[in-house]
Amino acid sequence: MPVTIFGASGYAGLELATLLASHPAVAVVGHASDNFAGKAVGNFARGPVGAAVFQRVEAVLEAPAKVAFLATPNEASYALARKLVDRGVRVIDLSGAHRLRDATAQKHFYGLDLPAYPDGALAYSLPEVLRLDRAAFSALSVIANPGCYATAIALALAPVVAAGLVVGAPIVDAASGVSGAGRKATEAYSFTELANDFRSYRALRHQHVPEVRQLIGLEQPIHFVPHLLPVARGILATTHVTLAEPLTPAAVESLYAARYAGEIFVKYVEDPEEVRLSRVVGTNRCRLSAVLDETGTHLTIFSAIDNLLKGASGQAIQNLNLLLGLPETTGLEALS
Amino acid sequence: MPVTIFGASGYAGLELATLLASHPAVAVVGHASDNFAGKAVGNFARGPVGAAVFQRVEAVLEAPAKVAFLATPNEASYALARKLVDRGVRVIDLSGAHRLRDATAQKHFYGLDLPAYPDGALAYSLPEVLRLDRAAFSALSVIANPGCYATAIALALAPVVAAGLVVGAPIVDAASGVSGAGRKATEAYSFTELANDFRSYRALRHQHVPEVRQLIGLEQPIHFVPHLLPVARGILATTHVTLAEPLTPAAVESLYAARYAGEIFVKYVEDPEEVRLSRVVGTNRCRLSAVLDETGTHLTIFSAIDNLLKGASGQAIQNLNLLLGLPETTGLEALS
Amino acid sequence: MPVTIFGASGYAGLELATLLASHPAVAVVGHASDNFAGKAVGNFARGPVGAAVFQRVEAVLEAPAKVAFLATPNEASYALARKLVDRGVRVIDLSGAHRLRDATAQKHFYGLDLPAYPDGALAYSLPEVLRLDRAAFSALSVIANPGCYATAIALALAPVVAAGLVVGAPIVDAASGVSGAGRKATEAYSFTELANDFRSYRALRHQHVPEVRQLIGLEQPIHFVPHLLPVARGILATTHVTLAEPLTPAAVESLYAARYAGEIFVKYVEDPEEVRLSRVVGTNRCRLSAVLDETGTHLTIFSAIDNLLKGASGQAIQNLNLLLGLPETTGLEALS
Amino acid sequence: MPVTIFGASGYAGLELATLLASHPAVAVVGHASDNFAGKAVGNFARGPVGAAVFQRVEAVLEAPAKVAFLATPNEASYALARKLVDRGVRVIDLSGAHRLRDATAQKHFYGLDLPAYPDGALAYSLPEVLRLDRAAFSALSVIANPGCYATAIALALAPVVAAGLVVGAPIVDAASGVSGAGRKATEAYSFTELANDFRSYRALRHQHVPEVRQLIGLEQPIHFVPHLLPVARGILATTHVTLAEPLTPAAVESLYAARYAGEIFVKYVEDPEEVRLSRVVGTNRCRLSAVLDETGTHLTIFSAIDNLLKGASGQAIQNLNLLLGLPETTGLEALS
Repeated sequence: MPVTIFGASGYAGLELATLLASHPAVAVVGHASDNFAGKAVGNFARGPVGAAVFQRVEAVLEAPAKVAFLATPNEASYALARKLVDRGVRVIDLSGAHRLRDATAQKHFYGLDLPAYPDGALAYSLPEVLRLDRAAFSALSVIANPGCYATAIALALAPVVAAGLVVGAPIVDAASGVSGAGRKATEAYSFTELANDFRSYRALRHQHVPEVRQLIGLEQPIHFVPHLLPVARGILATTHVTLAEPLTPAAVESLYAARYAGEIFVKYVEDPEEVRLSRVVGTNRCRLSAVLDETGTHLTIFSAIDNLLKGASGQAIQNLNLLLGLPETTGLEALS
Repeated sequence: MPVTIFGASGYAGLELATLLASHPAVAVVGHASDNFAGKAVGNFARGPVGAAVFQRVEAVLEAPAKVAFLATPNEASYALARKLVDRGVRVIDLSGAHRLRDATAQKHFYGLDLPAYPDGALAYSLPEVLRLDRAAFSALSVIANPGCYATAIALALAPVVAAGLVVGAPIVDAASGVSGAGRKATEAYSFTELANDFRSYRALRHQHVPEVRQLIGLEQPIHFVPHLLPVARGILATTHVTLAEPLTPAAVESLYAARYAGEIFVKYVEDPEEVRLSRVVGTNRCRLSAVLDETGTHLTIFSAIDNLLKGASGQAIQNLNLLLGLPETTGLEALS
Repeated sequence: MPVTIFGASGYAGLELATLLASHPAVAVVGHASDNFAGKAVGNFARGPVGAAVFQRVEAVLEAPAKVAFLATPNEASYALARKLVDRGVRVIDLSGAHRLRDATAQKHFYGLDLPAYPDGALAYSLPEVLRLDRAAFSALSVIANPGCYATAIALALAPVVAAGLVVGAPIVDAASGVSGAGRKATEAYSFTELANDFRSYRALRHQHVPEVRQLIGLEQPIHFVPHLLPVARGILATTHVTLAEPLTPAAVESLYAARYAGEIFVKYVEDPEEVRLSRVVGTNRCRLSAVLDETGTHLTIFSAIDNLLKGASGQAIQNLNLLLGLPETTGLEALS
Repeated sequence: MPVTIFGASGYAGLELATLLASHPAVAVVGHASDNFAGKAVGNFARGPVGAAVFQRVEAVLEAPAKVAFLATPNEASYALARKLVDRGVRVIDLSGAHRLRDATAQKHFYGLDLPAYPDGALAYSLPEVLRLDRAAFSALSVIANPGCYATAIALALAPVVAAGLVVGAPIVDAASGVSGAGRKATEAYSFTELANDFRSYRALRHQHVPEVRQLIGLEQPIHFVPHLLPVARGILATTHVTLAEPLTPAAVESLYAARYAGEIFVKYVEDPEEVRLSRVVGTNRCRLSAVLDETGTHLTIFSAIDNLLKGASGQAIQNLNLLLGLPETTGLEALS
């Protein structure tokens, strides 16, 4: 199965290129990047990708294959998806352009109208939270791949929200490595500015909040503050909820274990200090743990992922596998 | 005025040694450290400290001067303070041993009984939150210097708590540089283990919670989760409170500006992204800012300090100055 | 083919455990580590390793399999190798205990006597520099795996030394990530001590110098200064040689390209700024490049490897494959 | 004495602003920066700088004071110096524009002609290597402040070169923190690209080589390779020389101690591992040490400085003090 990658020189795009190079069912036939056109992909990828060379976007659009990954900015993805679908290409979009279903939120957070595709042609897929069935997948033209923070937060909240245990607004403080901002040629993201530093950004204003609420069906708001860590990769989300009734640690562990039973990439661990970047970076895993206060009604949930893998390219491969009717872990075995 | 430092080879102790070396009113006559005894202080300090050499604790106890700083672990401070006070020495303790006034909390968090000193001989001092008057200071034998997290959190919460605006339990996620753990010869704090990592520790169980509640008179609990940053120095605290009534950003700014008017080391800034480690590390400053949600009833407050300066040695110099009846900023001008 | 790993909880041992878990021809039947005995290997490994649990050394020695990897300190490897060989186990030793053939150097640098094994039973193997033939390999009881710095330096020097081009003593300044020191529970290797720092260590006294000279047959000394980088992984060696005659950049490139033609893990690149840690960490690659001065007689060669992979466990897998008569890249495809 | 700073928002410019704010003999009356014009200097400086606001270059040129510091790029400094001297302003230039006296090198490395000033009006000053006398200083219009690498290398080489001990070309591998590159809005200097990385740049082609040779009167070339460290600040230079005759460690120490006797900012220490970034960053110090090989004829010298202080702004203050006839350490006491 030939596939193409748009935005292939970005951090998520390069991870995709590496993962797809060893995927048994597909072959990447185009790595689109206007900025890097002509350069060898292998010079930048972390693993073997053969002799591939970045091509200009227009060139790849001429032979876009059957499936295309968009690891491009929101506006670019929005426009490219349309062009590709019109050519009969199925699209997995890693940007935020196709995630929201509320026109006001879409306009507010992305400055875009809702994308108009026929019913059933567009869906959002975070498999471990809401797994579409095979029939639904086979009808899709555009798969919206989840946001990185949204992945970490939704995996943390889904079990307690689904159990009807959450009272009031969850509060989430999360921190991400700098690669989450993509390739940046700005002073604010220069090494000297960020080394040894830590700060918040877009506090209470981040675009992944409506995405999480839509996904897990949460009525109440989420007070979410992202922070910028002086590391390249990884997200740790610390999520606070007030529980409707007191729980025990064992009950919490059971709830999460049951919810994610059989999910190879999501694992609840007993020790919250083991939910840390070093245990997930370089993998497609999400690690979860939680702590209760003395009353058993305040629950703090920890979730950690690699923002470029489970938070982007690894999850996109899961979605590719579902699209192709393959086992969900195909090509991701070494990252589990 | 001759002073001595116990625990002088620790990270806070070395900062103290450097600050005191250029303080116009005092001279350090003893740097106690059993581990570093015989080594030159100047080899480890970040600034000029003259030709001083670390001495054994017993040697310094024989000539403890009129004022002694304890930058030692809790148990050591507890025992040393007693010995020093018995010899007529006034003590500024940077450890947690003398901070709490509740016997249960003291036992639970520090494993110690409450220290027994005559009325008025022992007090806790975080000047910008609760400034003791000169008479009170002049009667003190033991000054409990605040904890690093407690400083950042109390400065964030004091204005809104004092204004009676806080409903329910504040939630605090804070992150500290590794020097907050002191000198460590353990695998868990080795460079390779912590580089590129980020994780929580002692979630909902940290000993600075009772300290903050006692200081600002907070009835409700605080749900506090500390995190370990892959940097050497600095603390950022992100504090969430539910407000009793909606506020505007201007009202929040006024509240903080009014509360800290005249405080040279505490400054509210408009842009929350400017409350970051790089703006406070190497200084005795606390920077504050805050953000409101759309309803004006969820307030997120950011506070940043250098854990070794405003969170330890710099604040101890403030307390020394108050003890000696000097201007509070004496010797700290370059760090303001 | 069942294999065992001694020192399995060390940084190189954990990499070995991960690589071997996906190696098609072997199965790890024992992960020996007295310190971590009883803990799950999977909690520390960067990839899937199944349900394995660390066992005590004595327990693994009772069922040591047919091949054992020693990722243990020098003295431990020296003693373990003897025990294992006596039980008919073939040993791949990642330590320095079995590398040198000169008794004086062995005593001076390792404090050990030369290991006494029958002729042909012990050999040193850095495949891309000196590849033993299959017959030699099949007779081996103990394979000495190269040192990390030695690998980087030998790969840089071998082509010009073999061509008889080097006059006088090469000068090497190299820098390594902290994982090269192994797991450390010492203050000197704590995060706070090493963050933002850079320094030399064992200048002109490092034990990998005799190893390189022996391997590439260099008569003259090497003036080698290792430095400690504030990163977890990776080595960059900057090697200076005076050439017997002026060379052109093209001639240098030809020399290296010819020497390493067909070597999948060693690659000469034109741009010396592309010989950098980020291009090799996480891989079994060595990247090389070089620069000439204006006279064409001073050559500076750059070589970069991941100290834990090409500098330790990856190379050990190459040696395992040669021992088993498998293609040298078996199980390392994703790291090429 | 009123002074102005051009390039005041750069990393060296901000350090200058901070140092000059507490200098007892001067007052900064203009902080020129077109990019930051209108912003408060205090928001970016590491210490107290009062209420100063960055102004546009043209505005500061209108009232340039009696002494101006240029912390601007080479071409800007070249042009600004001329304008300022024409207005009777004395200039201390931290850029490379006025350092070289050889027209070919100036053109090759800086793309500039030699600056034309009357005899005695222009001089290069690295006080501890070549201290101009008071008369010479009082006649200067333009003082060329040394380069950061040049400072570290010249301080390392001067004693052995002056003693006529060096045979052949010295070899220098040095590593600098990223702030040495100045404020950068380029992808290559972004955090994600440089974190955990290490590489060379401009190998055997760096512009500080002619500067060092000119300063210490070295006939032979220097083979110099700079490297980029993943830290914000600091330079460590590792310099190798072949000695004309064998020396003992004691003789080396004597040579350096004698050469730098009385120099408060330059100190030879016995242990080469104590020549490390952490001992000099934040200070105006240079630390030196050295190691001999077994024959006593290969000498490796280590030198470490803070590139923004002793390598730029701190040294510029030394030169200001000399210009004003003040003690050389004025305003730098806390950095000694």
